[in-house]
Amino acid sequence: MDYDVIVIGGGPAGVVSAVTAKKYYPDKSVLLIKSVAKGVIPCGIPYMFNTLDKPEDNAMGDKSLESNGIALKIGEVTDVLRPEKKVLVSSGPDSQAESFGYKKLILALGSVPRIFPIPGIEKKGIYAIRKELDYLLSLYKDVQEASDIVIVGGGFIGVEFADELSSMSGKKVTIVEALPEILANSFDKEFSLLAKEMLSKKGVSLITDKKVTSFNGGERVESLTLSDGSTLPCQLVILGMGASPNVSLAKKAGLNLGKSGAILVDEYLRTDSDKDIFAVGDCAEKKDFFTRERISVMLASTATAEARIAGANLFQIKAVRENKGTIACYSTKIGNLVLGSAGLTETEAEAEGFEISVGTADCVDRHPGSMPGASKLRVKLVFSRQSGILLGGQVAGGESAGEILNMLSLAIQKSSSLTELETLQVATHPKLTAAPTIYPVIMAAQQALGSCQIGGES
Amino acid sequence: MDYDVIVIGGGPAGVVSAVTAKKYYPDKSVLLIKSVAKGVIPCGIPYMFNTLDKPEDNAMGDKSLESNGIALKIGEVTDVLRPEKKVLVSSGPDSQAESFGYKKLILALGSVPRIFPIPGIEKKGIYAIRKELDYLLSLYKDVQEASDIVIVGGGFIGVEFADELSSMSGKKVTIVEALPEILANSFDKEFSLLAKEMLSKKGVSLITDKKVTSFNGGERVESLTLSDGSTLPCQLVILGMGASPNVSLAKKAGLNLGKSGAILVDEYLRTDSDKDIFAVGDCAEKKDFFTRERISVMLASTATAEARIAGANLFQIKAVRENKGTIACYSTKIGNLVLGSAGLTETEAEAEGFEISVGTADCVDRHPGSMPGASKLRVKLVFSRQSGILLGGQVAGGESAGEILNMLSLAIQKSSSLTELETLQVATHPKLTAAPTIYPVIMAAQQALGSCQIGGES
Repeated sequence: MDYDVIVIGGGPAGVVSAVTAKKYYPDKSVLLIKSVAKGVIPCGIPYMFNTLDKPEDNAMGDKSLESNGIALKIGEVTDVLRPEKKVLVSSGPDSQAESFGYKKLILALGSVPRIFPIPGIEKKGIYAIRKELDYLLSLYKDVQEASDIVIVGGGFIGVEFADELSSMSGKKVTIVEALPEILANSFDKEFSLLAKEMLSKKGVSLITDKKVTSFNGGERVESLTLSDGSTLPCQLVILGMGASPNVSLAKKAGLNLGKSGAILVDEYLRTDSDKDIFAVGDCAEKKDFFTRERISVMLASTATAEARIAGANLFQIKAVRENKGTIACYSTKIGNLVLGSAGLTETEAEAEGFEISVGTADCVDRHPGSMPGASKLRVKLVFSRQSGILLGGQVAGGESAGEILNMLSLAIQKSSSLTELETLQVATHPKLTAAPTIYPVIMAAQQALGSCQIGGES
Repeated sequence: MDYDVIVIGGGPAGVVSAVTAKKYYPDKSVLLIKSVAKGVIPCGIPYMFNTLDKPEDNAMGDKSLESNGIALKIGEVTDVLRPEKKVLVSSGPDSQAESFGYKKLILALGSVPRIFPIPGIEKKGIYAIRKELDYLLSLYKDVQEASDIVIVGGGFIGVEFADELSSMSGKKVTIVEALPEILANSFDKEFSLLAKEMLSKKGVSLITDKKVTSFNGGERVESLTLSDGSTLPCQLVILGMGASPNVSLAKKAGLNLGKSGAILVDEYLRTDSDKDIFAVGDCAEKKDFFTRERISVMLASTATAEARIAGANLFQIKAVRENKGTIACYSTKIGNLVLGSAGLTETEAEAEGFEISVGTADCVDRHPGSMPGASKLRVKLVFSRQSGILLGGQVAGGESAGEILNMLSLAIQKSSSLTELETLQVATHPKLTAAPTIYPVIMAAQQALGSCQIGGES
C-alpha cells in the first residue's frame, strides 16, 4: 500500500514527526512503522522502578496516532528501496515481507546503547537500557531481587537510576565512572559536586576515575573487577555508557553518514543523499548552535524539536528554521536537587576557544526566604566576553530550576545579551520565585559584567 | 553633607537603585533616605498573616545597604532644591531639617493606596495596604480577632489576601469586585474563572458587579452596604482598590508629570525636567512595550528592572536599553493554583487594535502524567496574526507555571516569533516538566498557527 508520508520509528521523534506532518498537511496519508508494539516514554524509564505506581504507567500509548488519523504498522523495516520509493517490512521470521510506497520518508530510528566489549558483559543480570516495555519488565523483576546493584557510567541515566534505586529499601547502589566527576559532559565541576553530595546523602557509593575490566560469575553476574584490581559484588549491573545513533538501515540504503556516525542532514533534516528522505532525532547528525561543529545530543526534547521542523517542511519549506543548530539542554532531579544545563558550560566554552565572562548568583527560590517550600537556587551564566552574548547557563535548586533552565535555553536560542538579561523584566512572587531584588538570572548577568569588556568599570 | 548619589525611597526600587549605582560606580558615595525605619517586602505582605511563622519574617532588612557601603538616613524628604542640588530631610516634628547635597538624585517614591471617598471609609477596622511594618502589625492583630472579613477589590492584593485569610480557621472571607470578573485587568476570562473556582473551593464568597456604597457602624466598622442595597456584616475590611503614584514631592520640586499622573521620564529613567534627577518604580511613568502608550504597572519586579537601568546609567549611559518599554508580568498563587500573565491578554490586544492569532495548550506538568506531584497546566499565547510576533502569554498550573511565565516574559521582550516558539529547544524531565512531545509553549504556538497567516495551510 502507498502513503504520502511514512515515518519509521515509534519513539517521541517518530510520533511528533507524524503528528506534525498531519497537522501541516491534513490531506496527506501518513503511516508510522515501529518494530516494538509496546514502547515506553524514554525519559521516564528510571522512574518505572519506584516512583511510579507500576512500570506499565510509563508505557507510551498510540492515542495521538489514532486521534490524528495516522496509520500504524508494527514490524521491522528491513530495506529502504530508494529508486522505487518503497520500504520493505517484516512482521516476523515466518511472515512475508510487505512493501509500502512513500513520497516522503522520515527516519526516526533512535539510538542503541553503547556496549563496550568488557569480558563477561554478556552475563545475565547485566542490562543496557533499551526502550522496550517487556525488556524493562524483566529488569524490573531483577531490581526487586537484587541487593547489590552497580551502575556503570555516571551520566544522566546512571545518576537517575542511582537516585531511583537508592530510594528503595535494601539496595546497596554503586556508580562506577571512568572520569573524575559524574555528569562531567554536561556540568562544570561545582555543579557535578552538588550531584555527588546529594547521591552520597542518599547512600549511593561513587567510584570515579576507574573502569570496569571484567564482569565475573557463572551464567549470572556475581561481581565485577575494576581497573585498580578491586572487586565489587553485584547481582545486577546497569550500563549507562552512552548510546550510538541507529544507522544500520540508513547505511544499507546508501545514505551518507556524518563524521559523528549519524545520518548527515541539512538544516531542514533532509538527508544529504536524498531530499525525499528526512532523518530526525538520535539517528541524525546535529550541528552545534555556536560553532556549527557536529554535536552529540541525544535527548527526546531535541528529537521532538527536529521532528516538528521535519514534519512542517516535508513538502515545502514552511517553517524557516530561525534558530540554527542544536543546543544541549538537560535537566534532572536527584533526591530533591534539580540540576540543569543549557548551551555551553564554562569548561566546554573554554575548550572551544571562546573568550568568556562568567557570573554566578546564589539565592533562595522564594521570598522572604522563610516561605514554606523554599530551596536554595544557584544560576551560572557563561557569556562571550567581548560580544556579551549568552553561551550557556547552569542551574541547581528546587523544582523551579527546571523551567528556569528553559528560560535560559530560550535566552541562548535568541542570542540574548548580558545587558538584556541584566535588565530583564520578570514576574516575581513570594510563593513561586526569588525576590525581584535578587532574581538570580539577573544577578548572575550583573556579576558577569565585572569581568566583561562590554559595560562596567571594574 | 554631600553625596554623589542620593536615593529617596527604601522599597525594592530604592534599594536596587542604590546597590546598582555602587556596583557600577564604586568610587561614588551613595546615600539612601527612607521615611520608615521598618519596611516590609511588598509582595510578601499577604503572607504575613498565616503562611509565614510570624509577620516579622517579612521585614525588609538593611543588610544589602550596609554590605555595599551605602549610607542610610531615616527621615522624610520635605523638599528637593533643584538649583542648589540639595534635599531637605525632616526627622520628626521637633527636629531641625537637615540638608544633603547630590550630584545625581533618584526618586523611588513608590505609590500610595487608592482610597475612594466612600461614606464611612475612615472608620476603624478598615485597612488599605501600606508598606510599613507597624501598620501591618496592627492589621495582623485585627485579623486574628475578626470573623467576618470583607475585601474590597478583586485584583492581586484582594485575591491573595482572600487566599491567605481563608486558610485560617474561623474566618468568613468575602471579596467585593465592581467588575464582572476578578483579576480582569491581567487575565482573560477563562483564567479569571479558574481563580474564582479555586477561591470558591476555599470557601471565599465572591460578589462581583457590585460596588460598596457605604461602611456602617460606630467608631469601628460593623457592616457595609452594596450598590444593590444589600448589607454585609464585617469586623474587618481590607481595601485593594489599586494605587496611585506617589508624586507629591516631585510636584513640589516642579518636575513634569505624565498623562498617567506619574513622573515623566525618558528611556533611561531620567526625568523629563531635570537630567540629574531620575525616577524609578511605581512613581515613574511607563511606556507599553508594544504601543508606546503609557501603561500602569506597579510591580516590584518592574520597579527593580528600572532601578538597575537607572543605577547603571547615572553618570554615563552604559547599559543601552535594548528592551524598550514595559511589559506587565504577573504571577500569583491561589490555593494550589498558579496563575501568570505577561504582555497583552487576548482582550487587551484586541482593545489595542491588534489583529491576533491565539493558541492554547492543556497538558500535565510532569510525564508520564501519573508522576507524583503532577498538576494540570494550561498555556495561552497571543500572537500578532500577520507578523507572527508574540504579544502575550498566560499560564495556569502548578508551581512550575511561575518560571514558565518568566520564559514567556523573555520571549515577549526578545520579540520571539511563532516559528521560533514552535521549534523551541527545551529541556524536559519526568519530574520537572511536561513531556517533550506536548511541551505546552510549543503546542500553544502550533495551535495558534492554524489561525495565523504566516505558515500553516488551514
